[in-house]
Amino acid sequence: MSGKMEYVTCTAPVNIAVIKYWGKRDEKLVLPMNSSVSVTLSQDQLRAKTTIAACKTFSNDKIWLNGREESFDNPRIQNLLHEVKCRARIQNGSDLDQLLSWKIHICSENNFPTAAGLASSAAGYACLAFTLAQLYKVTGDVSDIARRGSGSACRSVYGGFVVWNKGENIDGTDSIARQILPHTHWSDLHILILVVSDQKKHTGSSEGMQKTVQTSELYKQRVKCVPERTDDIIDAIKNKDFDKFAEITMKDSNQLHAVCLDTYPPISYLTDTSRDIMTLVHRYNTFKAQNKVAYTFDAGPNACLYLNEADVPGVISIIEYFFPPTSQSQHFITGLPINTRAIEKEFISNVTIPIQPDGLKYVIHTTVGDGPRVCTNEDSLLDRSGEPISPIAEKRNIDSVL
Amino acid sequence: MSGKMEYVTCTAPVNIAVIKYWGKRDEKLVLPMNSSVSVTLSQDQLRAKTTIAACKTFSNDKIWLNGREESFDNPRIQNLLHEVKCRARIQNGSDLDQLLSWKIHICSENNFPTAAGLASSAAGYACLAFTLAQLYKVTGDVSDIARRGSGSACRSVYGGFVVWNKGENIDGTDSIARQILPHTHWSDLHILILVVSDQKKHTGSSEGMQKTVQTSELYKQRVKCVPERTDDIIDAIKNKDFDKFAEITMKDSNQLHAVCLDTYPPISYLTDTSRDIMTLVHRYNTFKAQNKVAYTFDAGPNACLYLNEADVPGVISIIEYFFPPTSQSQHFITGLPINTRAIEKEFISNVTIPIQPDGLKYVIHTTVGDGPRVCTNEDSLLDRSGEPISPIAEKRNIDSVL
Repeated sequence: MSGKMEYVTCTAPVNIAVIKYWGKRDEKLVLPMNSSVSVTLSQDQLRAKTTIAACKTFSNDKIWLNGREESFDNPRIQNLLHEVKCRARIQNGSDLDQLLSWKIHICSENNFPTAAGLASSAAGYACLAFTLAQLYKVTGDVSDIARRGSGSACRSVYGGFVVWNKGENIDGTDSIARQILPHTHWSDLHILILVVSDQKKHTGSSEGMQKTVQTSELYKQRVKCVPERTDDIIDAIKNKDFDKFAEITMKDSNQLHAVCLDTYPPISYLTDTSRDIMTLVHRYNTFKAQNKVAYTFDAGPNACLYLNEADVPGVISIIEYFFPPTSQSQHFITGLPINTRAIEKEFISNVTIPIQPDGLKYVIHTTVGDGPRVCTNEDSLLDRSGEPISPIAEKRNIDSVL
Repeated sequence: MSGKMEYVTCTAPVNIAVIKYWGKRDEKLVLPMNSSVSVTLSQDQLRAKTTIAACKTFSNDKIWLNGREESFDNPRIQNLLHEVKCRARIQNGSDLDQLLSWKIHICSENNFPTAAGLASSAAGYACLAFTLAQLYKVTGDVSDIARRGSGSACRSVYGGFVVWNKGENIDGTDSIARQILPHTHWSDLHILILVVSDQKKHTGSSEGMQKTVQTSELYKQRVKCVPERTDDIIDAIKNKDFDKFAEITMKDSNQLHAVCLDTYPPISYLTDTSRDIMTLVHRYNTFKAQNKVAYTFDAGPNACLYLNEADVPGVISIIEYFFPPTSQSQHFITGLPINTRAIEKEFISNVTIPIQPDGLKYVIHTTVGDGPRVCTNEDSLLDRSGEPISPIAEKRNIDSVL
């Protein structure tokens, strides 16, 4: 191995939208029809990690995703790389000409299985954009760079509570994300991700949202009512008003799936299990005479529940009652530890939904977290020659991040 | 038994909406937010039958529904009775004063189980209004009288293809149904009602539509786009354009369930089985390169399929393949006979939905039919003393009609 090698490693978080992004006004620039709001999850439980190396002696650009080499010709990667290099030239003039001319090796991995059905592409592209920005000394906001890879990725370049403003400009220069408040603002807001069993193939979100924009009559009204919702949930976040936050979050999730059903042919992401979780949440909130839990569903059947830390044990006891794990289910609950608590009998006695053994695959317990991090070289996924350190080992229980 | 007794017996059909009625602008007068369009089903398979007797010697008004005596204080029945008596006085002056002063006995029954999840109240109230009109010599349109019992009942007073105009008047005088074309216009339009197994309790449609009007943002847009749809499907019916008829029917069913999901808390009538039927229909239409079948769902999981008579055998073979009846399922297919046909292997080989033994309880095969009929006295459900002829026998496999 001859010649100096530049390399950097970073991590980026997953984000879960509470005001959903569904529909583009510009497919190529990835500009949304409406603004969206999300909560960034802790990287202690869920994160993408990317190492990028640049070297004069590299003969080709290469990318390894979760231990498997993939084609570098992916247009999303190319768009993103093009954007960050332009930004680098503007900011650094000719100082970086040599570095920018070198081929690069990218190695990226998730610490969670794609089976979780989480928006892994958001964390993956945010990490790619952030890491490239580090490599090429790009400063300032990189959310618009991440957006080129995947729309929702622009929200993963910040921690805490994030809004992605749709923007008005045709060139998309004002369609960027910004942090509303850091994760420390509302640190007792916790998240339970309920991974539903027997996943089916679903319409991809890019294809799905395109069909919705083209065919749904109701979608026109959704676009009209999102701005007010966005303002209201930002206020609820600022005031840590969980009751309001929960109501808007659930209403917006339901509206997303309503416009999917109004799409022709219809798109269905929710299953009977998803709907039973929704029913449970509404019954529990009624039982408590206030919103204690909020559900939200992306383009799949898995539920993401928001709740205050104090309510986690009670809610978990109910989830385990209605979706009892059997012996096969190893580590049913992962992530942050949970104090066990006796189930509230007076609640379950009034709920009629069926008990579904193994209805859930597993549960991830996490909280709000910070934004992308620059790691030390000890965390590098590439060795000194720019080759993956442990591609096969990573391959086992981890899936594609991009 | 002393004193002359007046009595009359009539039957009325079930109707299935293709442009759905969902939402009232006046709860008391039962005035809808939008017009709706329906197809009247043949009374040979599905009908309500009502006998009403009036006699000077009756001491009380009485009503028996499917062999069980019920309270006469039901406000819907009272409203309807009040309306028809007013109309009788206006049309007949004082000639009927004596008859109108007599107490009445009402006996009504369905020839189909409520398990079918069909809008039995439509047939029931239409039959009640039509029979009362016969008894009190009321002539002309009685759809607005039936409407007082149940909105959709106003469409069951006509056969064939029916539109219920929402009307503009505050007093509802122009919110009436009219026949677009008789059943003879498109007699090869057939209907398959797929009764889904394990029915759950559902939100009643009156309560459900009220919540939708109050809480759904998307509902505003539905109300706006129904008028154009209504005109388009009336044209499709006039031209017997099945492809167009099918597309609008499916889109409107999906939109109804979309606004239900956008209701807060959300209302879900469709189950995984319902969605599998929807998927099957869209795949089959794609396979045939044109719409051969259309589904529509009311406030429950059961599917109503519209298709041309020639396509019934092929579609039934597919339904029996994906929802195979087991030995328990007696008479899986009821109603009109069906010629068996070999399943199209090239179709099922490309469909990924799971095979669900007993996923369907049974199937009813019927066609478009005519309007209410006046029966002979041999068909009377009441004996010469005004008592039910066979209350217990009726009670077994038949449920409440109102």
